[in-house]
Amino acid sequence: MFKKIGIIGIGMIGGSVALAARAAGVKFITALDVNADNVLWAHQHGMIDNVQHDNVAVLDGAELVIVAVPVRSYEKVFTQIAPHLPPGVIVSDVGSTKRGVMAAAEKFLPGATFIGGHPIAGLEKHGPQHADATLFQNRWCVITPPDGADSEAVRKLFDFWHALGSHVEIMTPHHHDRVLAITSHLPQLIARTIVGTAADLEDELQDEVIKFSAGGFRDFTRMAAADPVMWRDIFLDNGDAVLEMLQRLSEDIALMQKRIRAGDADALEAVFTRARNIRQRVIEAKQA
Amino acid sequence: MFKKIGIIGIGMIGGSVALAARAAGVKFITALDVNADNVLWAHQHGMIDNVQHDNVAVLDGAELVIVAVPVRSYEKVFTQIAPHLPPGVIVSDVGSTKRGVMAAAEKFLPGATFIGGHPIAGLEKHGPQHADATLFQNRWCVITPPDGADSEAVRKLFDFWHALGSHVEIMTPHHHDRVLAITSHLPQLIARTIVGTAADLEDELQDEVIKFSAGGFRDFTRMAAADPVMWRDIFLDNGDAVLEMLQRLSEDIALMQKRIRAGDADALEAVFTRARNIRQRVIEAKQA
Repeated sequence: MFKKIGIIGIGMIGGSVALAARAAGVKFITALDVNADNVLWAHQHGMIDNVQHDNVAVLDGAELVIVAVPVRSYEKVFTQIAPHLPPGVIVSDVGSTKRGVMAAAEKFLPGATFIGGHPIAGLEKHGPQHADATLFQNRWCVITPPDGADSEAVRKLFDFWHALGSHVEIMTPHHHDRVLAITSHLPQLIARTIVGTAADLEDELQDEVIKFSAGGFRDFTRMAAADPVMWRDIFLDNGDAVLEMLQRLSEDIALMQKRIRAGDADALEAVFTRARNIRQRVIEAKQA
Repeated sequence: MFKKIGIIGIGMIGGSVALAARAAGVKFITALDVNADNVLWAHQHGMIDNVQHDNVAVLDGAELVIVAVPVRSYEKVFTQIAPHLPPGVIVSDVGSTKRGVMAAAEKFLPGATFIGGHPIAGLEKHGPQHADATLFQNRWCVITPPDGADSEAVRKLFDFWHALGSHVEIMTPHHHDRVLAITSHLPQLIARTIVGTAADLEDELQDEVIKFSAGGFRDFTRMAAADPVMWRDIFLDNGDAVLEMLQRLSEDIALMQKRIRAGDADALEAVFTRARNIRQRVIEAKQA
């Protein structure tokens, strides 16, 4: 296990990495955040071991640096940390898109050992106050090494996430972005779109939308509670894969319209039964 | 409070009505179900007070009859119970659509006092085993009286649901169906459609869809776990209102496609921020 790690961005995910890493035996954890209050809070609550105000001090002696900021802020972060990276350090991240991240690392962290990471876990809450040491347990973490990555560094990062309780899978950045487009980005986009559609209804009905939301709408609003900037960046970064999935969905929605208009009971029941069977598979895979 | 009630369909919702009614002081509860095991189970667990096998015995002496079956089965149920309704009994239901239900009652329960009801609460689980005495607490229940309804009967039904812990609202069937189309039926339809879209992806990716579902997809599958027949009937019954909302959503999806394709960061962030604010309103309304 790494002895010292640095975390750039000590929010809900970064804080959970700190707590889980501590539980897994990391001796010294330090962090930076654009929000100085987050760093203070994390230190006061024993999540990190000191309060630093610059990259030099945070990176000093670190064996692993985890970047946990919205993906469109990576360029800035990489540029700032590049001159101060200690020799042999592994740089990784927790971002929800991987192609853009890998390209940014190649450009702005030349010569550094960057290996992409994405724990498929999270809460619709912000800040280190909502960090959870068990967040990654029994969840999948995807690692995306660049071409020609140092296999020893890949192994160390694999072992790190495994020690934090995750199942770990290695993928190409391209494959990761396509899988996540359908399993995460499209559902998240549609949830937000439908919440907007409901909000557009006339004022009177709008109050009723909130009031009677327990029938399904509230579950979409739950997803929409997550950070708007983080999600904006994901759609900017993985736009092509999301657009492909959105096109497929639009075709399926058109089919559903036809079935409802035609009153096609058999087709509706078949689609709903199939969807319920998928739910059963999610439960069996222990991802429910 | 009613002294004796009969429940037609003792599943998760019918069973929850029984438990909540008992807690609210109803003395005698009896039930019928096409699945005889449900009735036996409910009796063995003290949810109902006897085991009956026909409408005559279940309806005998009842002051309130609650129909809790899929909405397309109402015609059959109404036809069977009509000859045996005791004088003065109020017939109501828990169905998720109301125009079709009211029309069916007018046609197949001539002369009876039918007042539509819809508790906006539920679980994606089936059978009396999942009934919950607290299911309706702090949830809304919509009552849809027909034109010229007996105001005393409406008041009694209002008081009944209030005693079960619900906030009660009176609406026309038409208004109910339009509000529920956006707050419940459209979200439920889209959740199932997106689960189908994901399932259509090639076999290899399909396994990964399940594996990495924690990023959002699993929340859609959770909704899709509910009874396919119940939901089929809802879309057959409320098709016009759902199609209107689906048209609005399709236009909004097209807009999102344009924004992603154009990389319009400001517009995406604005839409996501607005969606998050709606979540806040759901929390404030205690419907989260």
